[in-house]
Amino acid sequence: MKKNIKKINASILIIGNEILSGRTQDKNIAFISNWLNSKCGIAVREVRIVPDVEKIIVKNILSLSKKFNYVFTTGGIGPTHDDITAKSISKAFKVKYEFHKEAYAILEKYYGKKKFNDGRKKMAKMPKGAKLIYNPSSAAPGFIIKNVLSLPGVPTILNSMIENTKRYLVKGSKIHSKTINLYTVESNISKQLGIIQKKYKKFVDIGSYPFFRLGKIGVSIVTRSSSLIKLRSVNKDLLSLIKSKKIELLKL
Amino acid sequence: MKKNIKKINASILIIGNEILSGRTQDKNIAFISNWLNSKCGIAVREVRIVPDVEKIIVKNILSLSKKFNYVFTTGGIGPTHDDITAKSISKAFKVKYEFHKEAYAILEKYYGKKKFNDGRKKMAKMPKGAKLIYNPSSAAPGFIIKNVLSLPGVPTILNSMIENTKRYLVKGSKIHSKTINLYTVESNISKQLGIIQKKYKKFVDIGSYPFFRLGKIGVSIVTRSSSLIKLRSVNKDLLSLIKSKKIELLKL
Repeated sequence: MKKNIKKINASILIIGNEILSGRTQDKNIAFISNWLNSKCGIAVREVRIVPDVEKIIVKNILSLSKKFNYVFTTGGIGPTHDDITAKSISKAFKVKYEFHKEAYAILEKYYGKKKFNDGRKKMAKMPKGAKLIYNPSSAAPGFIIKNVLSLPGVPTILNSMIENTKRYLVKGSKIHSKTINLYTVESNISKQLGIIQKKYKKFVDIGSYPFFRLGKIGVSIVTRSSSLIKLRSVNKDLLSLIKSKKIELLKL
Repeated sequence: MKKNIKKINASILIIGNEILSGRTQDKNIAFISNWLNSKCGIAVREVRIVPDVEKIIVKNILSLSKKFNYVFTTGGIGPTHDDITAKSISKAFKVKYEFHKEAYAILEKYYGKKKFNDGRKKMAKMPKGAKLIYNPSSAAPGFIIKNVLSLPGVPTILNSMIENTKRYLVKGSKIHSKTINLYTVESNISKQLGIIQKKYKKFVDIGSYPFFRLGKIGVSIVTRSSSLIKLRSVNKDLLSLIKSKKIELLKL
């Protein structure tokens, strides 16, 4: 019996000069990608990092939202002049950039009427028609419009909000993954690995990644598939290869 | 007297399923970007992360190499089936994918004739006409063809090779940068910061980044410019703003 595999993909658009310049080490890509994979069966297929420039953001939003089921943006939704994500997405989708009533109410309540200044009010401005992604850490919500979900750049805040994106996402089939760690060099198994990959071409992705651990060289073989049966089968083939080559397995 | 400012830019193409899936935390973007900035006056203007799929790599190489002065690729130049960077770049530029004589000699010497198997030989295959980027850690060289420079994905190896790309790069004007750290919230200064950014629009980029340190909230104001005079001037403006608002400065 053939099981229906539902493939859903996403891309991530990181908006921020601080990531591009190398000043800040990005942590959001791995976090979002892992979360989408493990919790939603959604595979990230492309990431772009772009500067805080409206024209560039508009262009990338349009191209990524056409190519992928979802686009996650991070960064640029704070109170300062370089926070132009919401405005740029409004331009991209040709909708008004205006106060979101509920976001305004949330922020006004959080800061109190007196301290709700212009900078803070700016965080309530969104593309018309956007729905909120609630923020349990620092109140200022993210938003979704069409298939684009906008989150802040600060990792701790983003992490606290990610569960609140779930209600907007269609889940894909779970992507299963297995890693085998070996004490060998890649070139010792590269030929056979290529043959095994060919055999499972459409069903399993096999990745090979060298590592260095306690002064010894090793290789991690990572297999990924929506089909648990194919994954088990490919790993059986890998274990026979390892046995035939008398390679030592590493249990991490 | 007006000083000539020479703007040179670059993009980075990260090739690898392991980064896209979130399995591996990328460290190469920040490293390359910082190095290009500080050592070569080259600004990274876009980063893309793509899977190990030939068609996608070809498309991105062509589009990025047209848009930017340089493209740095990382990953996919090892001995296994998922290492398809050199082959894909050959396709993109419509040149043969063949053994590079010097690379072959280097690798044969490094491994010894007996241990120079097919997987290892694969690392000597490159686009016809490529020049080598030497690798002092593990012999297998990177390469440059046209304006595309290909480096390995393992950060320690990449780091050891980066100086060897210098001979192929035209340097840009040094990009100066200054950071001021304040104990305040962004919304307290966002309005004035916007005004200052407008004043220096074409000359200085001002970034504002919230931080949390020892339980206190703060903001880092980062200014970047090719002109040291403009950078000093904008920082004078920033310091008056900080003084007028009686904001505490943080010395890190």
